[in-house]
Amino acid sequence: MSLRDNIRIVEPYVPGEQPQGDVIKLNTNESPFPPSPEVVKAIMNIDTDNLRKYPSFVCTELKNAIMQNYDVAEDEIFLGNGSDEVLALCFMTFFNSDKAVLFPDITYSFYPVWCSLYGIPYEQVPLKEDFTISKTDYCRSNGGVVIANPNAPTGILLSSEDVEYIVRYNKDSVVIIDEAYVDFGGESVVPLIHKYNNLVVVHTYSKSRNLAGIRVGYAMMCSELNAALEAVKNSFNSYTLNTVSQAAAAAAAADKAYFKKCTSEIKANRAYTVSELDRLGFKTLPSAANFIFSTHPAYSAKDIFEYLKSKNIYVRYFNKPRISDYLRITIGTGAEMSTLIAALEEYIK
Amino acid sequence: MSLRDNIRIVEPYVPGEQPQGDVIKLNTNESPFPPSPEVVKAIMNIDTDNLRKYPSFVCTELKNAIMQNYDVAEDEIFLGNGSDEVLALCFMTFFNSDKAVLFPDITYSFYPVWCSLYGIPYEQVPLKEDFTISKTDYCRSNGGVVIANPNAPTGILLSSEDVEYIVRYNKDSVVIIDEAYVDFGGESVVPLIHKYNNLVVVHTYSKSRNLAGIRVGYAMMCSELNAALEAVKNSFNSYTLNTVSQAAAAAAAADKAYFKKCTSEIKANRAYTVSELDRLGFKTLPSAANFIFSTHPAYSAKDIFEYLKSKNIYVRYFNKPRISDYLRITIGTGAEMSTLIAALEEYIK
Repeated sequence: MSLRDNIRIVEPYVPGEQPQGDVIKLNTNESPFPPSPEVVKAIMNIDTDNLRKYPSFVCTELKNAIMQNYDVAEDEIFLGNGSDEVLALCFMTFFNSDKAVLFPDITYSFYPVWCSLYGIPYEQVPLKEDFTISKTDYCRSNGGVVIANPNAPTGILLSSEDVEYIVRYNKDSVVIIDEAYVDFGGESVVPLIHKYNNLVVVHTYSKSRNLAGIRVGYAMMCSELNAALEAVKNSFNSYTLNTVSQAAAAAAAADKAYFKKCTSEIKANRAYTVSELDRLGFKTLPSAANFIFSTHPAYSAKDIFEYLKSKNIYVRYFNKPRISDYLRITIGTGAEMSTLIAALEEYIK
Repeated sequence: MSLRDNIRIVEPYVPGEQPQGDVIKLNTNESPFPPSPEVVKAIMNIDTDNLRKYPSFVCTELKNAIMQNYDVAEDEIFLGNGSDEVLALCFMTFFNSDKAVLFPDITYSFYPVWCSLYGIPYEQVPLKEDFTISKTDYCRSNGGVVIANPNAPTGILLSSEDVEYIVRYNKDSVVIIDEAYVDFGGESVVPLIHKYNNLVVVHTYSKSRNLAGIRVGYAMMCSELNAALEAVKNSFNSYTLNTVSQAAAAAAAADKAYFKKCTSEIKANRAYTVSELDRLGFKTLPSAANFIFSTHPAYSAKDIFEYLKSKNIYVRYFNKPRISDYLRITIGTGAEMSTLIAALEEYIK
């Protein structure tokens, strides 16, 4: 028995590139807009003396703000250090069966990583040829289901009716709907948590709330599921959300007008980008997210990715089966998207 | 197979009371002093526009600041969302054996909770009658060792020589030294990470850096151990440390003068409190921490705890074997300690 035998060795997960400096960053689905002015005020008004104390354990202010956005009760909200932590703790708590957890073969790449970390059996269910989800694929014996909706990196939305179909079928296992991108064109299934006790809906402040830097995510579910999740979380880390991030997220939740303005602008810029890409011969999947997934029949996605990088424009390329002909492009400001289109026009002409 | 069968059910860990309002809070070992003025400046100077982006993944600025405090390399530092998260991930990574992990019967109450969460076998080794640690108790077959030094809630310090003895013996298992309170009277064993590849030293910004509200902890160890820990962490949550907390912690690390001033004042207030408690007939264990552990031969600790609470003075009482006659009292400002002593004098006279 050597030292190494006592240590858990896992393959490190490698996050996307974080280029610094004067670049156009369309590779990690961040918002191109600054946080709400109310968030800035909340941070500047922090009682810094109070930072000597532990943060609020109950997070009442932030939960109240979320309750202004969704018709949920305080004990139906679970908060975490980014939606990645929320999802990781959900996997640990809710996927506790010997049966395989089901999720699409093409989806958020962290799902299989969490399964490996916690020793959860899983099965990657192939998307259809057109990258859509077939709801009946998830209606069979399983240890849980997790679906990103809209899906990533495709951007394709599954209808609320199809989500409900899957939730209704799986009454004995937990169905997690990861709605990180729902505010850019989808409709949240949060109201269904009052109808189904096996549904968990996960949201984030990193995308539509322009606050990836403060690391706040949350989930909504019935109070019984939430109690089990809180118990696991409190056996891991009692104080996951620092004082400043709690205040910033509460201010962001309260500024509904700014939220609407930012998400509307992303939708408009997405429509512009898709139509311009059409003109250049790209095929783009129908997106309900703040990114698009595009391919060009005549040019290699990898070559375009490298070319754009040389022009200081960063998009995301996945060297993986089925999607290696595609680029995932985050929707930025109008000016950023025009620069992208001009660069692509130059490349393709 | 019902829904409940698929869900992991754990006993919720219950953190200490967090009373609000105008109380003297000597129950959670927070600092009575505000953060350094440099921390306040760092927070007020945050580029709030940049909060739309993910935080730094590599945390170079904060690691550089820590390297000004300790002679360690960048790849020997592991950062986390409070030292609780750091410890939890260390347990998950380093205690991966079928043999029992060893720690004292009286120590930080989260250790057995993490073992239960991750299914790690453990054995609680009784402290000696005087609440000190016998180093030879940890020199036998084990799956790892974790020792809080100074220990909590006793405040008693194990000498660096005894720590090294334990680390040297256990060359095939990881020894974690949790130095959350070391800055109030102990000597860190961080230099030993260059001599032993099985040593992990955990620190926090919540105590001597006056920043419990920002949730930053860190650990130092050889780069090989750190690589294994980083891989597990990156399989859990890539971005655990938000942008504001990184900047605040870096500023706190850099302000060495303020750190020295605050820790010196705590030591002076501790000496005053111990001598006053002596005068009132209390017996206090020798403390190297920012709290003391005291008992009175003639009065029930639980009764004193309740009495102080009625006077809006919160201390910590543990209704547990061996220590139910003791109170753990955090060292506050001079004025707070005088008020405490006056209240106790009133009770005892």
